[in-house]
Amino acid sequence: MSRPLCSSTRTVLHHYFRQQQSSLGRHEGVKRCLTRSAVLSNAPQQQPRKPRIVLSGIQPTGIPHLGNYLGALSNWVKLQKDASPDDELFFSIVGWHALTLPQNPAALREARSDMLAILLAIGLDPERSIIFHQDHNQDHVELGWIFDCVTPTGKLRRMTTWKTRLAASRNAGSEDEVDESLLNAGLFTYPILQAADILAYKATHVPVGEDQQQHLELTRDIAEIFNRNFSPSPTKPIFPLPEFMNTPSKRILSLSDPTSKMSKSAPDTSSRILLTDSPFQISKKLKRAVTDSIRGITYDPVARPGTSNLLTILAACLDKDVHEVAVAYASKGHGELKSDVADAVESVFKGPRKEFERIRGEKAYLEEVARKGAERARERSGRVIKEVRQALGLS
Amino acid sequence: MSRPLCSSTRTVLHHYFRQQQSSLGRHEGVKRCLTRSAVLSNAPQQQPRKPRIVLSGIQPTGIPHLGNYLGALSNWVKLQKDASPDDELFFSIVGWHALTLPQNPAALREARSDMLAILLAIGLDPERSIIFHQDHNQDHVELGWIFDCVTPTGKLRRMTTWKTRLAASRNAGSEDEVDESLLNAGLFTYPILQAADILAYKATHVPVGEDQQQHLELTRDIAEIFNRNFSPSPTKPIFPLPEFMNTPSKRILSLSDPTSKMSKSAPDTSSRILLTDSPFQISKKLKRAVTDSIRGITYDPVARPGTSNLLTILAACLDKDVHEVAVAYASKGHGELKSDVADAVESVFKGPRKEFERIRGEKAYLEEVARKGAERARERSGRVIKEVRQALGLS
Repeated sequence: MSRPLCSSTRTVLHHYFRQQQSSLGRHEGVKRCLTRSAVLSNAPQQQPRKPRIVLSGIQPTGIPHLGNYLGALSNWVKLQKDASPDDELFFSIVGWHALTLPQNPAALREARSDMLAILLAIGLDPERSIIFHQDHNQDHVELGWIFDCVTPTGKLRRMTTWKTRLAASRNAGSEDEVDESLLNAGLFTYPILQAADILAYKATHVPVGEDQQQHLELTRDIAEIFNRNFSPSPTKPIFPLPEFMNTPSKRILSLSDPTSKMSKSAPDTSSRILLTDSPFQISKKLKRAVTDSIRGITYDPVARPGTSNLLTILAACLDKDVHEVAVAYASKGHGELKSDVADAVESVFKGPRKEFERIRGEKAYLEEVARKGAERARERSGRVIKEVRQALGLS
Repeated sequence: MSRPLCSSTRTVLHHYFRQQQSSLGRHEGVKRCLTRSAVLSNAPQQQPRKPRIVLSGIQPTGIPHLGNYLGALSNWVKLQKDASPDDELFFSIVGWHALTLPQNPAALREARSDMLAILLAIGLDPERSIIFHQDHNQDHVELGWIFDCVTPTGKLRRMTTWKTRLAASRNAGSEDEVDESLLNAGLFTYPILQAADILAYKATHVPVGEDQQQHLELTRDIAEIFNRNFSPSPTKPIFPLPEFMNTPSKRILSLSDPTSKMSKSAPDTSSRILLTDSPFQISKKLKRAVTDSIRGITYDPVARPGTSNLLTILAACLDKDVHEVAVAYASKGHGELKSDVADAVESVFKGPRKEFERIRGEKAYLEEVARKGAERARERSGRVIKEVRQALGLS
């Protein structure tokens, strides 16, 4: 009759902005979103740019792996480092989104707390950035409901996340329509809650992966619909149209099956390196990494996915260009490459790992950070919600 | 591209629990809901019954008409009068539900305030009952989102409200699928928000019209799903399964077209009597009421809908059985009946009308009542939300 939310097996959570649809590609409309795209680095500019409000979110996923770190988290730290003093930065742990998939409550509780510790451990500063649990700020769900009432269901049906879920459920069972009907309403409407996550702070820039551009496009559509219907005047729109923030994309592949993305849910634990892995574990997993039997090292993601993946990891850890790195290893063997990758990963993970192990036990400190973050977030979103209620006649 | 929420023409709002689907009938499952149905009146009982938590809601509909009053509002007052001292009563003005249809913000603002004044004017006591604006308590939308994540979309598709809307939109335009896709997501998921409205207070009894029994059935389904997945033990369910509270149903028909319900949105204003109508207006509208040319008065809703409607109104106003009333008028004419109905309506409306005109201007008092009501509501729902978060791992 229904799909239980709670599962006895610990289900691995997914990244908010890269949720379970690694295969999602480009789509109509992305270009519109990209036209005014911003870049992460703060290159010297002719004139001072407008202050930005940047927001990103991550699901409480337990311990992040190398793919999560290089693909998203490390970018947040860079973003914080490169931001102008006037920029406001919001980093949110989106617990409500986690509920769209089955969760073990005890695991979710721990993952929520761990994710906050990780954000601090990798270098996000709770004084500089507003770091908070989404589920500590009910303004998100209020705005989510309000946006539900302006969003045509047809727009949601076009979301590829929904289609992916649908396809997955159809592969798993029969092909008739019953499968769609079993998917929960949250899975259907969560792109609207994402729009609320972003617009509750009038965020102007959203660093997301390509797989989430479609959702950001929906956010812009919702902002436009709301502005058209409720803004006091066309020249005074209530919401900005948030821009896609192009962050250096590093797609890290599975070590044991380099044709697929590194994933938290893959059964083979050797396929991923976790932020908490010891140097020995890191080294062991990399030694077992699947490559090829071609002599020498070249960067060729199609013909040599495993080897190229190791080069991608190395380049990302060293903050170098992957082709440059490849050239340096041209005449070397896989053994040397793997050993150097292990060293590079360890040097990147060492600090955060140590810091995480220290902070994760400091429950009182974590609670205080969460409390203050939520307070600051609510203070910001409270002003927006007040304006929205006023515009709707709910005041 | 989208259906605007705001319309320049003032759109009339609808009753929450009788929302725009007067034709909705029985459905599978209602019987399950009715098996332990409660009755409104507190007949002497053998042993003291368990305290009840009763909740009902009404959309901010501007000024109620006779059908709203006799069909719903007057029952709330009786319910308050007949309740046991241990019963908790919640009456909510559900502004968030109003957003599922296009609204004029200024009209909605006024309607919200007026509806509170009306609830007080008809005799609801803010000391005895918890009277509040739904949109003052964000726990509803949080619980709504949580329930979104456990409710299969198939259950929503079976809701006749959705089907009615769909049919309406299809009649209006083409028959292809585009019409469904234009309906907003709020219209699709609002039965889930209703479930949250009810379960946020662990309400045990819900007085609703027959047309809303399907939604109450969904509420029970959601409570069951949640309990099964998240209650600490099967013997300690988090949510009760709220029961349908059978209130004396009085279906009042249009005065100008007694084949349809009295409606706020009918173009002919003579078709309805508003709570604010003067004695002269009441009398005039009743004189013009459509009846038939059969001599004498009999109660025969099928053959004599207009005449029978007048008898229904009279009986309801006098709190008498309609057949008894019909017998007393057997040899009288329509003129005398209409005149007596006018007197009876005036005697029922006089007090509330006067009181409404007095209270509606006392903005500070109304705001204070709303503030206190919301405070008391949040205090209750806060305990429930805390328990829910604990069960989910969001704490």
